[in-house]
Amino acid sequence: MSDGAVSYARTPRTTPTRYKDRATWEQDTIHAILDSTYLCHLGFVADGAPVVLPTIFARVGDRLYIHGSTGSRPLRGAKGDQGLPVCVTVTLVDALVLTKSAFNHSINFRSVVAHGTAHQVTDPAELSVALDALVDQTVPGRSAEVRPANAKELAATAVVRLDLDEVSAKTRADDADDDEADLDLPYWAGLVPVSTVYGAPVPDASTTVPLPAHLRGLTG
Amino acid sequence: MSDGAVSYARTPRTTPTRYKDRATWEQDTIHAILDSTYLCHLGFVADGAPVVLPTIFARVGDRLYIHGSTGSRPLRGAKGDQGLPVCVTVTLVDALVLTKSAFNHSINFRSVVAHGTAHQVTDPAELSVALDALVDQTVPGRSAEVRPANAKELAATAVVRLDLDEVSAKTRADDADDDEADLDLPYWAGLVPVSTVYGAPVPDASTTVPLPAHLRGLTG
Repeated sequence: MSDGAVSYARTPRTTPTRYKDRATWEQDTIHAILDSTYLCHLGFVADGAPVVLPTIFARVGDRLYIHGSTGSRPLRGAKGDQGLPVCVTVTLVDALVLTKSAFNHSINFRSVVAHGTAHQVTDPAELSVALDALVDQTVPGRSAEVRPANAKELAATAVVRLDLDEVSAKTRADDADDDEADLDLPYWAGLVPVSTVYGAPVPDASTTVPLPAHLRGLTG
Repeated sequence: MSDGAVSYARTPRTTPTRYKDRATWEQDTIHAILDSTYLCHLGFVADGAPVVLPTIFARVGDRLYIHGSTGSRPLRGAKGDQGLPVCVTVTLVDALVLTKSAFNHSINFRSVVAHGTAHQVTDPAELSVALDALVDQTVPGRSAEVRPANAKELAATAVVRLDLDEVSAKTRADDADDDEADLDLPYWAGLVPVSTVYGAPVPDASTTVPLPAHLRGLTG
């Protein structure tokens, strides 16, 4: 933060108890991690027990829009004025970190954990923005080349909003870290890069147009 | 279940309220999804609020072993006799499902959600099994070609156990599903396959052995 980067405030629950050097609250880093994917894991409490559901999200400025399609339970909780306490976690794996000892194996990763209270989006104009953002988070530029949602669809779209406020990132981007005493062991140590790739798009039978630019960019 | 497949018992919280045809409790399906990855999202409740942390897991029969390296908080809760109520979620994305309307966009995916009470593994023999399983879940066959953990490392290894009991899977593996009225719109609809791939392994400076078979298999 000495370089003047904008950071989110630290709180006890965004301050790790271990591997403190892997944590950051820097806004640019957090936004970049969020913008690298569309999949999040949404956690909430139901009847006193934790529930974690996968779903898609979009970042718009300092706000996350989270799709409620994986179940209506969290959405019901977010409908009232009180909102729903949630934890939204986004994780990207960059490499397997393989060491000569079983114990020192690790993963190179980037993750973001956001805590806060989610509220259901009910305003049609905001819903429209959120739905476009969800489409564009998955495939940048796509919302301009689909039929926008109509009023009936917007009313059936379940989206919650979470303002980014209490949020941190953790990252590991480092080599294998064996104990000195293990370095001469005759085992293979190093990194195995991991990445997510898109295959060749498969058009539906109803598709009569050529592959649009927003999909050519996605698949390289 | 009419074909006699073994299934986990359904409970209210493993019975979805929407898209019921996407849910299954079949053991083989659930195990196959779990065995396709090593990354999970671990949810628990801390001070009444949900927390979701990414970490690695291994399946051994009907039991999950979950690594506690992403934070010691859940592990502290799992130490007592009562254990820690958790939700463990595993998600794989197979394709983006792109439709002519913004509203009908979807994702082809496979996910597993397991609910239960996690307990910290303290027995050294079980810890040793768990640590090997965590290494092998990430890279099958690798635990036999690394230095096993010693007593000091096992004592420093934080692993919790969750028996698979209240668990279900959800999957979507289908084409784009546009409304009839949208099929003639001049937009691109179809599937974009998504997969996780491993890059060429990068050996550490200390590595003097050739790439072992367990890594050649991983990277094709």
